[in-house]
Amino acid sequence: MMAEALQEGFEVYALTIDYAQRHRVEISAARAVARSLGAARHLVFRLEDLGSIGGSSLTGDGEVPKGRGAEEMGSGVPATYVPARNTVFLSLALAWAEVVGARCVFIGVNAVDYSGYPDCRPEYIDAFQKMADVATRCAVEGDPIEIMAPLVEMSKAQIIKLGAGLGVDFGLTCSCYDPDESGAACGECDSCTLRRNGFTEAGIEDPTRYR
Amino acid sequence: MMAEALQEGFEVYALTIDYAQRHRVEISAARAVARSLGAARHLVFRLEDLGSIGGSSLTGDGEVPKGRGAEEMGSGVPATYVPARNTVFLSLALAWAEVVGARCVFIGVNAVDYSGYPDCRPEYIDAFQKMADVATRCAVEGDPIEIMAPLVEMSKAQIIKLGAGLGVDFGLTCSCYDPDESGAACGECDSCTLRRNGFTEAGIEDPTRYR
Repeated sequence: MMAEALQEGFEVYALTIDYAQRHRVEISAARAVARSLGAARHLVFRLEDLGSIGGSSLTGDGEVPKGRGAEEMGSGVPATYVPARNTVFLSLALAWAEVVGARCVFIGVNAVDYSGYPDCRPEYIDAFQKMADVATRCAVEGDPIEIMAPLVEMSKAQIIKLGAGLGVDFGLTCSCYDPDESGAACGECDSCTLRRNGFTEAGIEDPTRYR
Repeated sequence: MMAEALQEGFEVYALTIDYAQRHRVEISAARAVARSLGAARHLVFRLEDLGSIGGSSLTGDGEVPKGRGAEEMGSGVPATYVPARNTVFLSLALAWAEVVGARCVFIGVNAVDYSGYPDCRPEYIDAFQKMADVATRCAVEGDPIEIMAPLVEMSKAQIIKLGAGLGVDFGLTCSCYDPDESGAACGECDSCTLRRNGFTEAGIEDPTRYR
């Protein structure tokens, strides 16, 4: 998504949230990606208390589901759902955007291959936009911040093809919900399954390091 | 607002956000109020990085305006506006509410006497509600969280009368944007001015400790 924003001519202020996620190696991965692609700035925002309120297997409450097929992944909201997570993330991004004078907030949510997360759907992004349009000083002064979700309607294969075409080194990126300390992916969680299938369908070699 | 929620029969999970505000004594005040009225739990959520991104005189960028009259306070968004603050606060409250199984989030925003904050208006609360209704697991499963802003259309005098009738000890509360370290109020910022006028108009003695 960052590569797409750069391609569209944006200067990128990259935001990563440290919410005490069990897959904390994604924070190091985000640093590597931001450096590799060329962010004007990369802010790692500390939000560990979101993890400590719990409610998700991504922050330590229960197990990350493994080895699920497409049908299982497509039914209901999974244990990896983090309560109101994208709402919290987008709110923080909205705050930072207003401070730095950015007029677009990009978020890489994806609904087509989605694992049942309510806050990854186009109707959610639309509702957040409408809320943001009455929430901020810049919006009420006639200069609103636009929420962009360019990947929301794409398949994982399409996203991988897009990124590959833009020169993204997917070896730097991390999707796994349960990586080991070295950053190696489990290969079996929903996120790994969707990513693996995406590379296969795209016909692009998968550079992910699996354990 | 907490007294009103208790009056309505709710068990209260009180949430205070530590966002490195210069008026940090409001956090101690919130603890005293939560204890005094009887919160089931009081969470002080650490969000110091919101302060460090800046953009507001409440978190150290510039001066808190003092001695402004009603006309000045009523025109435009003041320097004490914190970018997207109530959106961030409500998002965190939404997350915690979903984890603890709460079905109402109360927020004490007030638009009538307001100092030009976009995120204190009824239309903002309505838009946040619509967004929340498509954001959370509980909402998509048919059990949405309701955002309650019972003070939003009241005058400060009406709020003070309501609280006094419910036995609130306003001597415990803190409104000042620029209190000293002992918690004594400046008496001159917009928030002090609105509060002072509210007590006068309500005909209730003001127990605030001014410096």
